Amino acid sequence: MSKVRVHNLAVSLDGFATGDGQTLEAPFGHAGVRLMEWFFPTRAFQSMNGKDAGSEGVDNAYAAAWGPGIGAEIMGRNKFGPQRGPWPDEEWKGWWGDNPPFHTPVFVMTHHPRPTLEMEGGNTFHFVDASPAEVLAQARAAAGGLDVRIGGGPSTVRQFLAADLIDHMHVALVPIVLGRGVRLWDGLESLESRFTIESVTSPSGVTHLTFTRR
Amino acid sequence: MSKVRVHNLAVSLDGFATGDGQTLEAPFGHAGVRLMEWFFPTRAFQSMNGKDAGSEGVDNAYAAAWGPGIGAEIMGRNKFGPQRGPWPDEEWKGWWGDNPPFHTPVFVMTHHPRPTLEMEGGNTFHFVDASPAEVLAQARAAAGGLDVRIGGGPSTVRQFLAADLIDHMHVALVPIVLGRGVRLWDGLESLESRFTIESVTSPSGVTHLTFTRR
Repeated sequence: MSKVRVHNLAVSLDGFATGDGQTLEAPFGHAGVRLMEWFFPTRAFQSMNGKDAGSEGVDNAYAAAWGPGIGAEIMGRNKFGPQRGPWPDEEWKGWWGDNPPFHTPVFVMTHHPRPTLEMEGGNTFHFVDASPAEVLAQARAAAGGLDVRIGGGPSTVRQFLAADLIDHMHVALVPIVLGRGVRLWDGLESLESRFTIESVTSPSGVTHLTFTRR
Repeated sequence: MSKVRVHNLAVSLDGFATGDGQTLEAPFGHAGVRLMEWFFPTRAFQSMNGKDAGSEGVDNAYAAAWGPGIGAEIMGRNKFGPQRGPWPDEEWKGWWGDNPPFHTPVFVMTHHPRPTLEMEGGNTFHFVDASPAEVLAQARAAAGGLDVRIGGGPSTVRQFLAADLIDHMHVALVPIVLGRGVRLWDGLESLESRFTIESVTSPSGVTHLTFTRR
């Protein structure tokens, strides 16, 4: 059975996985890049941008697990774009340019469906108004036997955790206090009882936690 | 100048440093012992209870830093006892028996002062209705040039952090989701800018974070 995986989900000490006030200019709101500073120097990230460069230490070891074995991604609408409510038109095609880094079918959860969007590099965005279990069934069917990644944001990951649909989750705990934003852990009391959890610190200051379903 | 230190402050992934519903039977509320399971096996804790036993790994290295160099402790009233409001009488003398583990003057912050309580082993409890800075001045005067420990609970530590009175803080991040209780990090946005932070994971699953004032 294909697995449902979360990777590179950065969370502050106070449990926020994105900041307050997302806009076109600030995809992570007031958090800016603070949650992702450990990620940008890695070879995994640099190579997404076509560069043959980057660190190969522990941060990269975790970051690089993001792609292999994934056949589809599910994301929340707030990861796809900063708009809220009905789409004014279909001009917005995500933050990632003509050739997004997913290279698989992507299922965007939204109460406002729009036509499927075909982009370069095998990126096909489907817009679905359905429950986590229903969207997962569609993503699994599209993944060709491979795993499904829950790509975020935090509200989307939280919904899948609450529905007990996650098999593996990698959280990068960043030692900052954001104070406001979107909390990952709300409503997930005793989550640890469902997972084996392992922690490793990195010289970058981040602690990588992996949650593996028991 | 003597330092102001916090040690062995255990915090959940969702930022709670004590659970919900403290009572005489449940000093940590619904959290029970889950925040302190890493601490009990350590030699530092075992020796507090008069035992010549316990682990001597990384958890103990952090736990054992609690005592040396400390000349006074400041604690909140909720650490001293489960009562709220005016004291019905002066029968309650803390959770710790006749010879508490502090062996220094202890300043209990409360809006309901009561007479100083002398106990065995150099434990003298003063009850003070004053601001963090004022209580700290009293504790420093009593500490004989040694450091002052802010003993908790989380609301008390948070007040001292907000007032920028902490020089060193050791937090043990426990990979559990408590869901409710008393949050440590509220109102402390960008706290990291005032500290150098180091992280180390332990085989117990806990991540030890030290905050050293810049």
